[in-house]
Amino acid sequence: LSKIEGVGVGTAAAGIRYRDRDDLVLFALPAEATTSAVFTRNAFCAAPVVVAREHLRQALPRFLLVNAGNANAGTGTAGMEAAQRTCALIAETGGCRFEQVLPFSTGVIGMALPVEKIAAKVPELMASLAEDGWMRAARAIMTTDTVMKGVSRQVHIAGSIITVTGIAKGSGMIRPDMATMLAYVATDVSVARATLDSCLQKAVAESFNCITVDGDTSTNDACVLMASGASGCVIDSAEKEAVFQQVLNDVCRYLAQAIIRDGEGATKFISIIVEQARDLEEAREVAFTVAHSPLVKTALFASDPNWGRILAAVGRAPIDKLDIHGVNLFLDEVCVIRGGEPAAEYSEEKGQAVLSREEITIRISLQRGEFSATVWTTDFSYDYVRINADYRS
Amino acid sequence: LSKIEGVGVGTAAAGIRYRDRDDLVLFALPAEATTSAVFTRNAFCAAPVVVAREHLRQALPRFLLVNAGNANAGTGTAGMEAAQRTCALIAETGGCRFEQVLPFSTGVIGMALPVEKIAAKVPELMASLAEDGWMRAARAIMTTDTVMKGVSRQVHIAGSIITVTGIAKGSGMIRPDMATMLAYVATDVSVARATLDSCLQKAVAESFNCITVDGDTSTNDACVLMASGASGCVIDSAEKEAVFQQVLNDVCRYLAQAIIRDGEGATKFISIIVEQARDLEEAREVAFTVAHSPLVKTALFASDPNWGRILAAVGRAPIDKLDIHGVNLFLDEVCVIRGGEPAAEYSEEKGQAVLSREEITIRISLQRGEFSATVWTTDFSYDYVRINADYRS
Repeated sequence: LSKIEGVGVGTAAAGIRYRDRDDLVLFALPAEATTSAVFTRNAFCAAPVVVAREHLRQALPRFLLVNAGNANAGTGTAGMEAAQRTCALIAETGGCRFEQVLPFSTGVIGMALPVEKIAAKVPELMASLAEDGWMRAARAIMTTDTVMKGVSRQVHIAGSIITVTGIAKGSGMIRPDMATMLAYVATDVSVARATLDSCLQKAVAESFNCITVDGDTSTNDACVLMASGASGCVIDSAEKEAVFQQVLNDVCRYLAQAIIRDGEGATKFISIIVEQARDLEEAREVAFTVAHSPLVKTALFASDPNWGRILAAVGRAPIDKLDIHGVNLFLDEVCVIRGGEPAAEYSEEKGQAVLSREEITIRISLQRGEFSATVWTTDFSYDYVRINADYRS
Repeated sequence: LSKIEGVGVGTAAAGIRYRDRDDLVLFALPAEATTSAVFTRNAFCAAPVVVAREHLRQALPRFLLVNAGNANAGTGTAGMEAAQRTCALIAETGGCRFEQVLPFSTGVIGMALPVEKIAAKVPELMASLAEDGWMRAARAIMTTDTVMKGVSRQVHIAGSIITVTGIAKGSGMIRPDMATMLAYVATDVSVARATLDSCLQKAVAESFNCITVDGDTSTNDACVLMASGASGCVIDSAEKEAVFQQVLNDVCRYLAQAIIRDGEGATKFISIIVEQARDLEEAREVAFTVAHSPLVKTALFASDPNWGRILAAVGRAPIDKLDIHGVNLFLDEVCVIRGGEPAAEYSEEKGQAVLSREEITIRISLQRGEFSATVWTTDFSYDYVRINADYRS
């Protein structure tokens, strides 16, 4: 993973839940850096989410502290105090204001955060700050992940080479409680906060919000974008912003798809494309209804071209007056339904050939508008139940 | 099951999909009977649903024909013609108009209905009509059901004894494609069509619409209420209607819960009660979000008091500005969360004791209104994946 000039990355092992591995990450930013973030919309958001959201409103962040193994969620007022205490520790050692530290946590819900274990490691964490710490950080934030997830991209903008590096954790729709999605993306461009917010929102809408982690809904989900400005490249025109947006979209889409591919128990990577919808909301509703259907997901696991389950999911999507005579359904290149009727050329053999693949695209056209949406998901295997029933027991 | 005077019930074995068992049911009604029905809201509803809905609008039904083993869904215009053909066959033999026959189908989606097999059995079906045919009919409509489902209730109304008998098929949220929910309820009161519609809608709202068959969404779901009038008791006052409504609610609730209890792979019966919501819609949204959560359902299967998953589901329910400080959560008699904070008296042992039970009530209070809703569901076991992945393969 490429360094981002100006951004320090440190790690340490506090033994919060895991032994013999790092579980703390610290990001350090220069004073002139700008930072944007999106957080879970779950009403039961974790204490660190409440604190980070508030601090980001009040000040320019200098440090981001992440711990794995404990989510500090469902912990009430004691949890709020614990999150604030970790910020105070970093601020004291790092020489900044309390509000300039953003806390993040991922792990089990409902257990007290062991602040003293973290406190004991703050000096080591500070000392480990280095521009080449990204790989260590990508490993340190993992919980149920089976592989680390990181990516870098470089692009020319108006004569400068700029870099975007991102890391993420989370393993698909499996265990959203343990597998909160966290993503940290940094770049060396200089960009105003409002522009940064807009770019991050667009990138998230086309990446993390297109995977079925139950619809942005863990208690701790967060995605942060940091811009150090160290490259000297200033995003101050629509043209430059467009190039930056594209590389940012690439990085976020890569990380989002990596989360889906790492879904424990997942045996297939499924893209669901809904086309020719009346509006974006309608396209997304249909795509997510299909993506969340346990019946569709178990059929995909069984490599069974049981298209009746896909149609039934489309038919119950919460959209306005669907005309089934406009619906086309394709499994990869094979047309199954055309104008709401079984396609004459379809055969069980053709459907079976597609379903046997490891990457499958389900394409649904509503033929009543110009909007489309894509959602990425996985199948639903025995391991899903095993993992989620055995966890904690 | 008690007879309903005036209502004939016949069965026959057409060999549509199953061998050595009945798979056709015929209900015959007197000319003065009134009939009401509710159907699936799925846009991809089956051909018989389209035909039955239309015929019910046009005429007073004299016959209801049901077949098990083939849903006649996803079959396009050929399926419509097949459904109409079966009505014509019954009308011809039974001596009524085509529009006075309502067709119903349940079984596999996407295969042509074998009309000739049904045609061959129409004379036998007519000959078998009898008032004591309810038990045979309850067995003949089964598909993946492991037990037959039927119930009778009698009550005094203004000096008369009236009877309500109902049968149903469907096995919980398992295989909604095969396990379409069908319910046939008959009574011997005399009641105007408008009143009958109102009574059925109220009864369904508190029974079949409170179980998680993916939210009324199979392609073939239907619930029919027939009133023969043979008892001489006329429902012509608010007082009489209230008594009738109550017994009808009882019958429908019994059948709905029987469907949940028969969920293949289900090991527990779960009641989810959401109280003190702002409106009914809000209460139902929260209850269904919890009921549909695969993470909550796998934790219930594992008897794991993993309340963080329940809170996360409540937190992502699509309702307006939930204040978590108003939320109380009980597992049976044990308080887990009070005012959004962990209850001081809660312990893992207390939670474990509740989760080890086979019938569990999850009670969620939002403390911001006067509305409540109850939803019944099951846990989510290895067998769910096995059944749904193995089916058809």
